[in-house]
Amino acid sequence: MVDARSGARTGVLHTAHGCVETPVFMPVGTQASVKAMSPADLEVLDVSILLGNTYHLNLRPGMEVIEACGGLHAFMGWSRPILTDSGGFQVFSLAGLRKILDDGVEFSSHIDGSRIFLGPVEAMRIQRILGSDIAMVFDECPPHGCTRDYACQSMEKSIAWAANCSEQLRAPGQLVFGIVQGGAFDDLRRHCARELVGIGFDGYAVGGVSVGEPEDVLLRGMEQGVAELPPDRPRYLMGVGRMSQILKAVALGVDMFDCVMPTRYARNGSAFTRRGVYPVKAGAYRLDTRPVEEGCGCYTCTHFSRAYVRHLLNVGEILGLQLLTQHNLFRYMAFMAEIRAAVRGGFFREYRREFGSLHAAGGGA
Amino acid sequence: MVDARSGARTGVLHTAHGCVETPVFMPVGTQASVKAMSPADLEVLDVSILLGNTYHLNLRPGMEVIEACGGLHAFMGWSRPILTDSGGFQVFSLAGLRKILDDGVEFSSHIDGSRIFLGPVEAMRIQRILGSDIAMVFDECPPHGCTRDYACQSMEKSIAWAANCSEQLRAPGQLVFGIVQGGAFDDLRRHCARELVGIGFDGYAVGGVSVGEPEDVLLRGMEQGVAELPPDRPRYLMGVGRMSQILKAVALGVDMFDCVMPTRYARNGSAFTRRGVYPVKAGAYRLDTRPVEEGCGCYTCTHFSRAYVRHLLNVGEILGLQLLTQHNLFRYMAFMAEIRAAVRGGFFREYRREFGSLHAAGGGA
Repeated sequence: MVDARSGARTGVLHTAHGCVETPVFMPVGTQASVKAMSPADLEVLDVSILLGNTYHLNLRPGMEVIEACGGLHAFMGWSRPILTDSGGFQVFSLAGLRKILDDGVEFSSHIDGSRIFLGPVEAMRIQRILGSDIAMVFDECPPHGCTRDYACQSMEKSIAWAANCSEQLRAPGQLVFGIVQGGAFDDLRRHCARELVGIGFDGYAVGGVSVGEPEDVLLRGMEQGVAELPPDRPRYLMGVGRMSQILKAVALGVDMFDCVMPTRYARNGSAFTRRGVYPVKAGAYRLDTRPVEEGCGCYTCTHFSRAYVRHLLNVGEILGLQLLTQHNLFRYMAFMAEIRAAVRGGFFREYRREFGSLHAAGGGA
Repeated sequence: MVDARSGARTGVLHTAHGCVETPVFMPVGTQASVKAMSPADLEVLDVSILLGNTYHLNLRPGMEVIEACGGLHAFMGWSRPILTDSGGFQVFSLAGLRKILDDGVEFSSHIDGSRIFLGPVEAMRIQRILGSDIAMVFDECPPHGCTRDYACQSMEKSIAWAANCSEQLRAPGQLVFGIVQGGAFDDLRRHCARELVGIGFDGYAVGGVSVGEPEDVLLRGMEQGVAELPPDRPRYLMGVGRMSQILKAVALGVDMFDCVMPTRYARNGSAFTRRGVYPVKAGAYRLDTRPVEEGCGCYTCTHFSRAYVRHLLNVGEILGLQLLTQHNLFRYMAFMAEIRAAVRGGFFREYRREFGSLHAAGGGA
């Protein structure tokens, strides 16, 4: 269903492990675990799809282990869909000394410094063993602020690698998504999107965003990419998770999101609420018997006070991280459900306005 | 019910927050949380009573916070019974510079070094605010290896403090337990027990054990204490949690136990099984698709492999601690349920033999 007054749309993504209602937020399970959450916790939160990381899982525990355990779903006890990134982003952002070659990248493991080679062939082989429902193509992610020449050459390489990825063997039922690159250059973004559509993928992502650029550059890069994508395929904006940005992207027709924000902020002691973000650890909440977010229906808010969660965080109890992660993910899941309901109901514009005014009132607590 | 061929017995302890079947193991929730477990997790594990720590809770979050939140049960979202220790053990084992006076101990906080005074009056006041179902008297816990003179003077002081505690105001329905001291000296242990029984408490604990002494000294100290205690009152062996020691103590008529072992070992990567303890982190389990303990019915063992739990522990994922804590507590709860069933069924001796031979076969995994 498409909103009459914006590009916002709802849909259903069919995968080998079931259906996903979009727009959807994918919690990040980098190392085969969404930090501080069990699969049972995630099911209670109605999480419909997770993200796993090729780069990290390939280093630890390694493919031998995951293959012995019957793939990533069986390994981590998660029966719903999984999307795996290709490792491209991590190779370019985490790895130290690296050498970019025609058929991939040689780099040093961030664990033990050993030399590893990753290219389209390797990334697709790893994702085949992981058995993810959605595999991402292996791409080069140019840094923010790079020259047009660099962005152009990098994009050409990413397109060639994407074509190579599309020819690789897949796990049964595995979908493969292309990734639009092109840096901050509109024409490159559009060109890349058209080339990928020419190759033909099950879905398309906008990559190389949320790498330190200002928000207007991020949104413009996304808009250029999305404009060239076919309406009948899912669109995924990689790594973007600020709620205000999700709303803007949804308005432009984006269907899928992932971000470490809800889980990472929880571990830093910050809570997401309808009124923004606030630090539960702050001294102001020492005697506060209200829940982390008033009116919230999550396990944390229906059972515990801010004073308790603050205490747990301040004395370093693991339960504090669990409870706040649970709340933040609940908030994100509820946010996406509200977006879907608003688009279906034809009141997405009103929902955005309401969201904006609540956030502007701000303070979080 | 009392076993015909030993002192082992089953019973029901009635408290303001419900009944506890004994013999019982109390998981330790030092800072108002059993590490890595939510109250919901503990209820699933059938935990019937928790232990909280006066010393720690008084420092953080402090009584003002717990009082504002309506007591320890409401603060931590736990509706079943709670036993609180008096802080005596911590003052003597954790606190640095301290000065023992007639009416208590002055010591430095391990958090910020501030000077704090704790005696029978203060310890009972704190436990009254905490609202625990069972409060322990404030005692002096002499170090292992102390002289008879020291042990004797220390015991006299503990008896005087116990008498003082028994006269303090209590929370509604709060039970108070005396603590038998006396170091490694049989006659002192017996004398102390008789004096406490003379004062009259709702239950009796054997304290000053598991402080580094050899096991035979520990068991002998316990035996001497228990021998003088009335059969119609619960008996609690403080801080003892090795399964083989629990069996020996149950055989001598002890009803209650607490220990950090199952939770602390989990965080160190070790699993308790019917065959002993083993390090799940070990490389030997890298490709092991079996559960942490074969045949175990806990959430961890019914959903995940050793290979997965080992991976989580090795990459530092919080979920690894959660899953292994859950398993270890499940094992302890099952162990106590088996003991109760064996005593009731009249086959406690056979159960001990079976337990011993399985453990002797050993290895854990």
